[in-house]
Amino acid sequence: MNSKKPGRRRFLKEGAALAGLAVGAIRSASGQTLAPETPAGKPKDTLAYGERSQFVNSLRIGTNGRYGMDNPELPRASRDYGIRTPLQDSVGIITPSSLHFIVSHGYDSPNIDPRQHRLLIHGLVDRPLSFTLEELERLPSVSRIHFVECAGNSTASGAVFVPGAARVAPTGTVQQVHGLTSCSEWTGVLLSLLLREAGVKNGATWIIAEGAEQGMHIKSIPLEKALDDVLVAYGMNGEPVRPQQGYPLRLLVPGWEGINNVKWLRRIKVVDQPYMGMRESTRYPSLRVDGKARWFQFEMGPKSVILRPSGGQKLSGPGFHQITGLAWSGGGMIRRVEVSTDGGRTWKDAAIQGPVHSKAHTRFRLDWNWNGEETVLQSRCTDERNEVQPTVAEVGKIYGVNLTADFFKERPDTLIHFNAIQSWRVNRDGSVQNVFA
Amino acid sequence: MNSKKPGRRRFLKEGAALAGLAVGAIRSASGQTLAPETPAGKPKDTLAYGERSQFVNSLRIGTNGRYGMDNPELPRASRDYGIRTPLQDSVGIITPSSLHFIVSHGYDSPNIDPRQHRLLIHGLVDRPLSFTLEELERLPSVSRIHFVECAGNSTASGAVFVPGAARVAPTGTVQQVHGLTSCSEWTGVLLSLLLREAGVKNGATWIIAEGAEQGMHIKSIPLEKALDDVLVAYGMNGEPVRPQQGYPLRLLVPGWEGINNVKWLRRIKVVDQPYMGMRESTRYPSLRVDGKARWFQFEMGPKSVILRPSGGQKLSGPGFHQITGLAWSGGGMIRRVEVSTDGGRTWKDAAIQGPVHSKAHTRFRLDWNWNGEETVLQSRCTDERNEVQPTVAEVGKIYGVNLTADFFKERPDTLIHFNAIQSWRVNRDGSVQNVFA
Repeated sequence: MNSKKPGRRRFLKEGAALAGLAVGAIRSASGQTLAPETPAGKPKDTLAYGERSQFVNSLRIGTNGRYGMDNPELPRASRDYGIRTPLQDSVGIITPSSLHFIVSHGYDSPNIDPRQHRLLIHGLVDRPLSFTLEELERLPSVSRIHFVECAGNSTASGAVFVPGAARVAPTGTVQQVHGLTSCSEWTGVLLSLLLREAGVKNGATWIIAEGAEQGMHIKSIPLEKALDDVLVAYGMNGEPVRPQQGYPLRLLVPGWEGINNVKWLRRIKVVDQPYMGMRESTRYPSLRVDGKARWFQFEMGPKSVILRPSGGQKLSGPGFHQITGLAWSGGGMIRRVEVSTDGGRTWKDAAIQGPVHSKAHTRFRLDWNWNGEETVLQSRCTDERNEVQPTVAEVGKIYGVNLTADFFKERPDTLIHFNAIQSWRVNRDGSVQNVFA
Repeated sequence: MNSKKPGRRRFLKEGAALAGLAVGAIRSASGQTLAPETPAGKPKDTLAYGERSQFVNSLRIGTNGRYGMDNPELPRASRDYGIRTPLQDSVGIITPSSLHFIVSHGYDSPNIDPRQHRLLIHGLVDRPLSFTLEELERLPSVSRIHFVECAGNSTASGAVFVPGAARVAPTGTVQQVHGLTSCSEWTGVLLSLLLREAGVKNGATWIIAEGAEQGMHIKSIPLEKALDDVLVAYGMNGEPVRPQQGYPLRLLVPGWEGINNVKWLRRIKVVDQPYMGMRESTRYPSLRVDGKARWFQFEMGPKSVILRPSGGQKLSGPGFHQITGLAWSGGGMIRRVEVSTDGGRTWKDAAIQGPVHSKAHTRFRLDWNWNGEETVLQSRCTDERNEVQPTVAEVGKIYGVNLTADFFKERPDTLIHFNAIQSWRVNRDGSVQNVFA
């Protein structure tokens, strides 16, 4: 890609590099005008910024210990937490920002003053660039609805949790097992625009993205993806990205495993080979049939899960029940969701009951009359590339292992990108249990 | 419509009327499982339910007094407030639930215990029905992205405010003038499904919806609309509807003036003529050319407004600026948005830069190089019926009056459904001012 080719629109002037942006900045009147005084010690002013009803108590959870940051014997940088979205309570496709899942490797979210924050783009470029948040907000922006999902989702083996327990335990809930996925409307600048402004040099093939947190997470991403649909996002569901999601800036890499979506983004280096960051070499590679590791996996496969009824819930009795759930795929749009109410013997097409966007949570529904007998509920989805969500056995074949419950307990960290069909058993008393099959 | 015609799907059993629903109910595990203990006196647990960065301070405002509930000489039922969304800070199309506009007539939001709340459907029906929230949540649901807009939006004359001030004052900001519109993903049950279950009798032509607040707001809605796309909504942006938006239930009447979207919904009566509720006869009728009032207006016309730059903001200097704004129409999808950077002499097509949904906020953008001279920015939109947003003069013609600034100041309450093109003047020093023209 040659940044100097004529006819390409330029937002920056030559020579603007490092000295900042030559675009005009707007001083916003917001916050100055009529902001209500909030007397100290008084209750929060919910007319200025609202809150939930006191009767609503849906919360994020960790699967073990309070939040999973629970192994003081490990060095801090190796301690992780995976805080899960309460999918069982969700409606529609948007995850409330206050309930977006959080995976953090070793450290709490930094409290970044946006006036001090810069995004540096350098490496194999013609003009290194540095941006303030305000400068980025003045550039042409896009808004897109996308899911973000941790590569370890649906194994409940993310880190120091009891190995594989929730995924194979009868008590496993949908929040414990599948709660490391969320979906938001993200707003920001296409990374391709920034890279074109910087002028990518011949020979460049990867970018390295770096976060500003204490652990300085870095991630290697192929240049081809960086020039496709990757966003430098400052907005999330209509307001600034939340601190635990990367305020003031995060990378949003649609459809790819969560670890790519670098939070508190401060640096993008254009390079000619991937770096072996800590999260390239540990935890994120997965099994190959020959026993070696599969590195640099990226795209999340098609997955769906029934949220209601799901593990830990209880049907009051036979009769009409709405089965509702979510489907998503890193490969694009969800084209079809099928639901089985007889343990996979027969399948019915579910209704898609909300907005459908590419690489986004997609809500499905099936009306069901339960006859009161024990049965197993399952869902499977198909994306726009006609890739179909696999069974547990089919995933085992891909990885070359026999995916028994014991395997899950013994080697949980070897399993990522686990998009197998989820089964929920409905017992005759109406109780719903996780089954690993 | 005959509820007894064969082949129609029935979710309820005959005889279920008033005694509640015969569908199965699910006892959710949410809230029971692993909810973290929050020790009294400790800071709120933001890992369980997140908050904004301390550096983000966008807030809702009233346009006069703290929130506009500021005229103690009026009886309480006549005192209104209109609390406005900070549109100037918004990104994308979703309004954060904490920043959704609030119009309340006389009373604060009730604090409703959902276990005590019922929705009654009665009147000209075969089977009166009563629903708990839990019962409604078990019925087939839909999720849709729609705006809600107060009929008095864009006049800044909603109630007891200084008449028309913000709409014609040079200091008027986009939040003050246009902040009574917001957009959310709404989830609930189609009202048509509930009405079919109840069995609408021959001769029925209207419904009367009633709220549970102290003021007991009622609104008449034609049966034809009620059977079209109206939702009984319990979800908003992925979580329960917020208290100020009607928790636990509100009517969502897509594309129609805000007053129809009855909050804290507790009763729907099917009738054969509209009721003259307080909000049918006062404030909501508008001018006719013959001097009489136009009653029972419903649909909001096509409207767009530039949010950045807008009144009260300041451009730092000539150069590149992104012009960004929102367009919406009660008539369906936005097909086109044009922007003028020379006071309406020439128009350019703006880019649509986010999800496009029917009767929803739609984000547009135009890249602009400001030459430093004084100019006026405008936007106008066209919806899928090819209805084009009018100028102020064109709106005046429809209403049969000369819409001067003085008219606005003297007779603000006669103007609703005001969807005229908004003009922002950019002065040579970069300051941006509201102009009424």
